[in-house]
Amino acid sequence: MTTIALDAMGGDSAPRAEVEGAILAARELDVRVLLVGIEATVRQELARQKARGLPIDVVNATEVVTMKDSPSQAFRRKKDSSVHVAAKLVRSGQADGMVSAGNTGAVMTIARFILGTLPSVDRPALAAAMPTAKGTPVVLLDVGANVDSKPEQIEQFAVMGEIYYRAIFGTKRPRVGLLSIGEEEMKGNELTREASNLIKQTSLNFIGNVEGRDVYAGVVDVIVCDGFIGNIALKISEGLVEHVGGMLKKAIKSRLSSQLGYVLAKSAFDDFRKKTDYAEYGGAPLLGVRGTAVIGHGRSNGNAIKNAIRVAAGLCRSKANETIDRELSAVAAAGAKG
Amino acid sequence: MTTIALDAMGGDSAPRAEVEGAILAARELDVRVLLVGIEATVRQELARQKARGLPIDVVNATEVVTMKDSPSQAFRRKKDSSVHVAAKLVRSGQADGMVSAGNTGAVMTIARFILGTLPSVDRPALAAAMPTAKGTPVVLLDVGANVDSKPEQIEQFAVMGEIYYRAIFGTKRPRVGLLSIGEEEMKGNELTREASNLIKQTSLNFIGNVEGRDVYAGVVDVIVCDGFIGNIALKISEGLVEHVGGMLKKAIKSRLSSQLGYVLAKSAFDDFRKKTDYAEYGGAPLLGVRGTAVIGHGRSNGNAIKNAIRVAAGLCRSKANETIDRELSAVAAAGAKG
Repeated sequence: MTTIALDAMGGDSAPRAEVEGAILAARELDVRVLLVGIEATVRQELARQKARGLPIDVVNATEVVTMKDSPSQAFRRKKDSSVHVAAKLVRSGQADGMVSAGNTGAVMTIARFILGTLPSVDRPALAAAMPTAKGTPVVLLDVGANVDSKPEQIEQFAVMGEIYYRAIFGTKRPRVGLLSIGEEEMKGNELTREASNLIKQTSLNFIGNVEGRDVYAGVVDVIVCDGFIGNIALKISEGLVEHVGGMLKKAIKSRLSSQLGYVLAKSAFDDFRKKTDYAEYGGAPLLGVRGTAVIGHGRSNGNAIKNAIRVAAGLCRSKANETIDRELSAVAAAGAKG
Repeated sequence: MTTIALDAMGGDSAPRAEVEGAILAARELDVRVLLVGIEATVRQELARQKARGLPIDVVNATEVVTMKDSPSQAFRRKKDSSVHVAAKLVRSGQADGMVSAGNTGAVMTIARFILGTLPSVDRPALAAAMPTAKGTPVVLLDVGANVDSKPEQIEQFAVMGEIYYRAIFGTKRPRVGLLSIGEEEMKGNELTREASNLIKQTSLNFIGNVEGRDVYAGVVDVIVCDGFIGNIALKISEGLVEHVGGMLKKAIKSRLSSQLGYVLAKSAFDDFRKKTDYAEYGGAPLLGVRGTAVIGHGRSNGNAIKNAIRVAAGLCRSKANETIDRELSAVAAAGAKG
């Protein structure tokens, strides 16, 4: 049985949402969950939610990382935080993977330093899955702020993102694209032109450059870019979806039929907003670390936490890290030859 | 009276939308319009739409730039295109400014080469105005594919964008932000950190870094970034808005009340989609060229064309280029001193 260490203190509704998610996961998926956090608080919530008989254990951690902690502060000054303890459980082999819906920057830093990076990986990348018009998810990476990336790092993102897509969404030959400003190969900037040349030489199903407007169209499964671009792409989308309701309201103020329509469609809208949240697809894995780490959205509810556990367990079971190391070593060997 | 040379062959519905826009502009704004294009075609459309007595003239151009022409092909091989002729009318002083809803890359290239760049400007920048949740527009630049920008160029974008905002939207001290991945000054990449240092030293109302999620929030009036980022930001937004309808439809399929709501709200949705189009605010000026050039969206209707003419005339009347040259010279002088 796969064991997942879950940071019980991470999200905006912790530990309630985390305990809910742990219970759902323990019931529906073949996993054991280690709830990591202030023991008394977690046990109280567990008792309230009736988790008896399920494969859920509690591991104590005396500190909590908040949204206000900087990544380096969280890493250096809170050595007994629930994020640290969860990462250490993975490092020691007591857990196969970890999940946290806490402070993204802090979780990334702690996971990177405590778990370490796979030998073949230059920089771990955060991969977000989002919905498309075709109903299939698209995975965008890096969204974890790896800025000023080198072409070789973008190539590694492509290999890791494709393995994640295959492992979790079951597509045999996911289409991989490079985010740029025109479809022609020569369009783009220095980085994309060099990265495109490298990715072309891999065995990936590389379809070349894709544009911003292709992201949600469902014409591509995995999109790679520098972390600065990926972060902005993700945040702009979140902001637009966040404001779409308000902007739409303004647009329809004057018409009675539309007003009525808005009221009727309102809950569907809220659903839609949740769907566009990457939490829907189980949070974002930090690919390239030794071990499995999945970061959920701060607003995760119990279902989103369960999905994040599902993704973490799926990555463990499919031995994604072994595949990453094998394929990146092959890429490096081919590069040395070529 | 301000004279605007309008490319009559540019947009997807040319010359119908262009003639409509010219008529609306000639009626409502204090402008004279020179419709530039295949003379017989334009005159036929003018006759059909009853433009008699309005300050509209036709200037012949024997060639048409299509969406398939590359910018360099359009510039070098179609010397008598309507875009070329419009730009030459501005260069010779027969028109104060030009407007085209044609192939954006081709119009930018032709305008840059025929009009030339202002002495103080390194690279002209395309500035797109978009709606925000607060109802005020936000101007994003560069969206015209100035890739691999230098910090000094980002600083120039800030100065030019602010002058455009003041001239067209009438705000006295527009708030200027730098698109980055965190609000703290040290967040970002090499380019944003250096650009931030430069912009801080200008007299602009610089509020520092803004994140992707701030773009549509209305917390800032002018946002500057490298053209690669700006293009992706704009295209992702267009793509998301384009697909929002379809994605929403999927989300609400199962509920009758939401379905009904969707039908009722449908036309409001379509309105909303138009509103998020930058054509609504009068297209995107190419700032920094000698003369005034405004590029409309290919899908511009008559009203969008009229708005683009309004923006072009407004930039001419406010002598935006003189202000740009004066303020950029001051920035350069301060830089040389500092």
